[in-house]
Amino acid sequence: MREWRYDPIQKRWIIISTTRQQRPVAWQPGEEVPTPQVDCPFCEGREGETPPEVFAFRTGGPNEPGWRVRVVPNKFAALQIEGELERRGRGMYDRIRGIGAHEVIIESPDHECCLSDQTDAHISLVLSAYRQRLRDLMSDTRFRYVLVFKNHGREAGMSLSHPHSQVIAMPVTPRTVAIELQSARDHYARKERCIFCDILDQELEEMQRVVELDDDYATLCPYASRFPYEMALLPRRHMADFATLTDNQLSSLARHLKRVLQRMKHGLGAPAYNLILHTAPNTSGTQGRRDYWVTLGEDWHWHIEIFPRLTRVAGFEWGSGFYINPQPPEEAAARLRAIEV
Amino acid sequence: MREWRYDPIQKRWIIISTTRQQRPVAWQPGEEVPTPQVDCPFCEGREGETPPEVFAFRTGGPNEPGWRVRVVPNKFAALQIEGELERRGRGMYDRIRGIGAHEVIIESPDHECCLSDQTDAHISLVLSAYRQRLRDLMSDTRFRYVLVFKNHGREAGMSLSHPHSQVIAMPVTPRTVAIELQSARDHYARKERCIFCDILDQELEEMQRVVELDDDYATLCPYASRFPYEMALLPRRHMADFATLTDNQLSSLARHLKRVLQRMKHGLGAPAYNLILHTAPNTSGTQGRRDYWVTLGEDWHWHIEIFPRLTRVAGFEWGSGFYINPQPPEEAAARLRAIEV
Repeated sequence: MREWRYDPIQKRWIIISTTRQQRPVAWQPGEEVPTPQVDCPFCEGREGETPPEVFAFRTGGPNEPGWRVRVVPNKFAALQIEGELERRGRGMYDRIRGIGAHEVIIESPDHECCLSDQTDAHISLVLSAYRQRLRDLMSDTRFRYVLVFKNHGREAGMSLSHPHSQVIAMPVTPRTVAIELQSARDHYARKERCIFCDILDQELEEMQRVVELDDDYATLCPYASRFPYEMALLPRRHMADFATLTDNQLSSLARHLKRVLQRMKHGLGAPAYNLILHTAPNTSGTQGRRDYWVTLGEDWHWHIEIFPRLTRVAGFEWGSGFYINPQPPEEAAARLRAIEV
Repeated sequence: MREWRYDPIQKRWIIISTTRQQRPVAWQPGEEVPTPQVDCPFCEGREGETPPEVFAFRTGGPNEPGWRVRVVPNKFAALQIEGELERRGRGMYDRIRGIGAHEVIIESPDHECCLSDQTDAHISLVLSAYRQRLRDLMSDTRFRYVLVFKNHGREAGMSLSHPHSQVIAMPVTPRTVAIELQSARDHYARKERCIFCDILDQELEEMQRVVELDDDYATLCPYASRFPYEMALLPRRHMADFATLTDNQLSSLARHLKRVLQRMKHGLGAPAYNLILHTAPNTSGTQGRRDYWVTLGEDWHWHIEIFPRLTRVAGFEWGSGFYINPQPPEEAAARLRAIEV
């Protein structure tokens, strides 16, 4: 069973997906098992144990050894790629069939080498795979958003320890992204300036929360950080869509990202972390329709959120949607800047 | 340092509070310590180790033994009660002084007896303490919302194992509550009916997701549950404000809640869980002002959310604000109903 269900009070979609019960890390209490390493289906030579690849940087034929980055459908996909959406209602409730893409980007054949320890060139390949999947999935007019993210470490929700990222393409715009799009649109409507550019300007003037800075990118601890050592990475020049990055821009991003991840790894004892890419919504199916979240380009600015999982989210956070952060982001940024990389 | 900071993109307030760094369970990696039980400051006879009590059901004088439920300010309060709000802006950013109440409701002198194992009469006393704190704090016109919640078990964010609930009164309306208020208001504007009442009607007709039902209250697994075994408890007759419950209604709620908590405890192996009360916003300071979230009464319906912490929130949930739930709520409700209590 795979189904999108709408919560009419909280205004959010939930995926009910029983296929997820079969994952290596089951969700029921007492059923957690150690990640199997000897039988890892993401390792080179075991290509037959995943669904057939949808993309790879490789020599040789598909689903054989010889790859450097490999993208496969998630074997325990929360969503299915085939079919019509079939939007239905029943009384107070709305649902859509569990349509979507759920893919795994296997970042390297090496089971042990985490993303931050890869070379700049290899990280650039991983980011190229992000870009390729965004371009490909955004041509599917059923999808309104493509979310790329990474769970590193068990505390961050990783279920297989072989380094990988994930892609979920979905027929509805994520609530988190919709709030950001609305804020950016409101700001642009009043000022004809990008809200992210304005924030970046202020941050580079104050230089209190900047962690990493080069000609192309800036990473900072946000003014209203939810978590200790939370970071946001943005391109310094305005740019809405990650999928339009050039190869040179990707190489530069790889260098920057590696330094940021290295600071976190060495400064904080290799913590579990989440990495989330918020690129522009998919407008390939809009054709002027008003029920889509869109962007003018000028009013959106792609960014990456990175946060180590050091604190627990508890009743206050669940009940309010607000967060208590025990560490001023100015202090977090100063500590991260001081790490030698 | 205690400060409310506004995130202009995500439209949410964050509390930066360095006093939280001193708690028994520190947030930094590798610094977690077992909960001290022999030195528990919440146990009877150690009343001097907490800040002076603000309320108690007791015999004898304040801050002495002889109490059954005791409410004290949180020693490591994220917010401070004294002072003006001092709203300030600087460029893109807004802040308020870290004003608010942060209290602990010590549910019993017994260190070991969890809420679900207390008698109906004692649970009723705990709920009376909730009501008393709501009434008292909602008379403070600086506060727009009073959130009552409970973290049970370490996975749910509990830092001291002596059974307790928490109260946070805040000068801003929680985002989660604001979304619910908006949905309820929109529904009421179109239909002149309460959205929660309409949902309850449909649930009691379908009887697929109801866990516990008596003359006064219903507990169900929501149609769009985020988590396995997530539950919502509502009064069956329309009622906006928890603080207006009569003693009889509290007694009936205590009986109902105990059965729900017992189902969860015995059916799921005594899991960690969060419990959150969403009552009406505080309108004591509104005086017709439009910058307040208010309710007409007819358009809001208090409710309690209860969810065991069985799954991890990962990149997809953080990046989208949506959730993947591996269990249909119909199945969760059937399993919980089948538990003998």
